[in-house]
Amino acid sequence: MPTQVSAPAEAQIRELIDGWVKAVRARDLNAITANYAKDVMVFDAVPPLRYRGTDAYRKNWEECFDMMQGPIGFEIRELSITAGDELAFSHSVNRLSGTQKNGKNMEMWFRATVCFRKNGGKWLVTHEHASVPFYPDDTMKAATDLKP
Amino acid sequence: MPTQVSAPAEAQIRELIDGWVKAVRARDLNAITANYAKDVMVFDAVPPLRYRGTDAYRKNWEECFDMMQGPIGFEIRELSITAGDELAFSHSVNRLSGTQKNGKNMEMWFRATVCFRKNGGKWLVTHEHASVPFYPDDTMKAATDLKP
Repeated sequence: MPTQVSAPAEAQIRELIDGWVKAVRARDLNAITANYAKDVMVFDAVPPLRYRGTDAYRKNWEECFDMMQGPIGFEIRELSITAGDELAFSHSVNRLSGTQKNGKNMEMWFRATVCFRKNGGKWLVTHEHASVPFYPDDTMKAATDLKP
Repeated sequence: MPTQVSAPAEAQIRELIDGWVKAVRARDLNAITANYAKDVMVFDAVPPLRYRGTDAYRKNWEECFDMMQGPIGFEIRELSITAGDELAFSHSVNRLSGTQKNGKNMEMWFRATVCFRKNGGKWLVTHEHASVPFYPDDTMKAATDLKP
């Protein structure tokens, strides 16, 4: 099936995602959370199992940025957007990279699914799911070595 | 924001998910995949990073069932459905449990996001994202001990 349902909505979501990627690279917490619903349900790559709310989401990014020195690398690949007049969802594989404050280089690909809803003419993220798969062997380690 | 956009669509998605849960418990591979788009994009709890297609999805469930003896426990909690006329998405925390063929008990809560699209009057799953968060410490282990 084609991913496009409404071309204008698809363009709006794409613009929103582009802005969000720039906001992450710029460490701009206000811009990162600008289009998130106050009660967004977040399934994050790290615990807890799930949490709700823009404040907690913002704090998570703040902690992430606090661990990194210098520029943040952020890249989105294989972005698919399915957008209607009122609802939309996207999925992609994303790469976060940079240098940690302990001097170690960090590079990680993760999967991201984002669900949007239009509210008063404005698109808002109501759900985000970010994750890394784990090896179902004795290690049970996160598969942070995978690349697309 | 309320999760309901279209009440009839919400009821259709709920019925579809109810049927899917029963199919997993019954180890019924045909019923599990009955409402999946042929080119569904899957972000699974275990590697690879992502894959596409009902055949691969079916094979994954088959391998999962092959590892388990006796009844499969499957439960969905905190299910939220947002459904419009053409698109829908849901998220929930799911519990898979049972006895492995090596005699070990298995119980795992994971997060699930499912995206749907109507095609010729029929809802199809076009994207599924299932995952367990990982501890960002030296172990990098999957947090399979978390409970809602």
